[in-house]
Amino acid sequence: MVEPLHVLRLGHRKGRDPRITTHLALVARAMGADRFLLAGDEDEGMFANIRSVEDRFGRAMDLEHLASPMAWLRRFAQQDAGDGGPGTVVHLTMYGIPHRTAIPTIRRDRPLTVVVGGAKVPPEAFSLAHHNVAVGNQPHSEVAALALFLDAWTNGAGLERTFEAPRLRIHPSARGKHVDEEE
Amino acid sequence: MVEPLHVLRLGHRKGRDPRITTHLALVARAMGADRFLLAGDEDEGMFANIRSVEDRFGRAMDLEHLASPMAWLRRFAQQDAGDGGPGTVVHLTMYGIPHRTAIPTIRRDRPLTVVVGGAKVPPEAFSLAHHNVAVGNQPHSEVAALALFLDAWTNGAGLERTFEAPRLRIHPSARGKHVDEEE
Repeated sequence: MVEPLHVLRLGHRKGRDPRITTHLALVARAMGADRFLLAGDEDEGMFANIRSVEDRFGRAMDLEHLASPMAWLRRFAQQDAGDGGPGTVVHLTMYGIPHRTAIPTIRRDRPLTVVVGGAKVPPEAFSLAHHNVAVGNQPHSEVAALALFLDAWTNGAGLERTFEAPRLRIHPSARGKHVDEEE
Repeated sequence: MVEPLHVLRLGHRKGRDPRITTHLALVARAMGADRFLLAGDEDEGMFANIRSVEDRFGRAMDLEHLASPMAWLRRFAQQDAGDGGPGTVVHLTMYGIPHRTAIPTIRRDRPLTVVVGGAKVPPEAFSLAHHNVAVGNQPHSEVAALALFLDAWTNGAGLERTFEAPRLRIHPSARGKHVDEEE
């Protein structure tokens, strides 16, 4: 059995971050997350975008806004990950341990939350996390970090995810765009 | 000898895309690109951001705006990649061939340009490219696609890139932030 995988985006600022947070959510969806949790500003427009992708390309991921993300994370990490026991928390930060070193030390028998920082990450995110994980120790992109972490975590299988009831299916091709559409 | 690696971002729209294009440029820098070529709007503010990262974390990548990107690409792909012979062009598109299938077919003995689409990709990008490559056939993020392609292309070595004369160096750590600063 594969344990649930959540992605928690901290500190979303509506107006400033919509495209970055949308990319994070789409990466989470494409690469295996069961739930995308948004903290910071509520953003119904962003959620509607993701639901519209799910309507066309298939259902895979729940969306939820968390009013108290650190309380949620504390409970998840220490008490109840949804099944009565604590889960595992990975916090992506460029200050952490390289992901290819960290991944073999992360347990796979518990629900996992991957925390992606925003503008200001509370220090408690570092201390609550079981693993502070860096995808490279250079500044680049939380979108890239999430994608590279999920790719390594799933050993490349994340991108092979299948989706429920897609209306659109893309057929890989050397030239042009080949898409099947169901009516 | 390692051949030069360029990343070409098509269709940048100043005002709308600054953060996505900044993330693309930082991923290119962190993961091995020698040159980041921007097409669409000129954007000195975005270039200044990237130069400021290079001032702090070390020099690695040139930045250039292309007024006529398709003419540049045509010349690169068909005539002169900078050394008198044609180079290789990879176009990242969710309609292409899966990257792990495509990569072993891409020649490594010529300069490479990785083309990342923007709002509207001219059909010529598909036909000029030697390889139309998909990183998953789901909509997600050009930032994630570039990162996952470069990671697979370099077999994980992209993230190990070293930089000239950094003032800041991050030391991987399990908790908190550990940074060395040179005066």
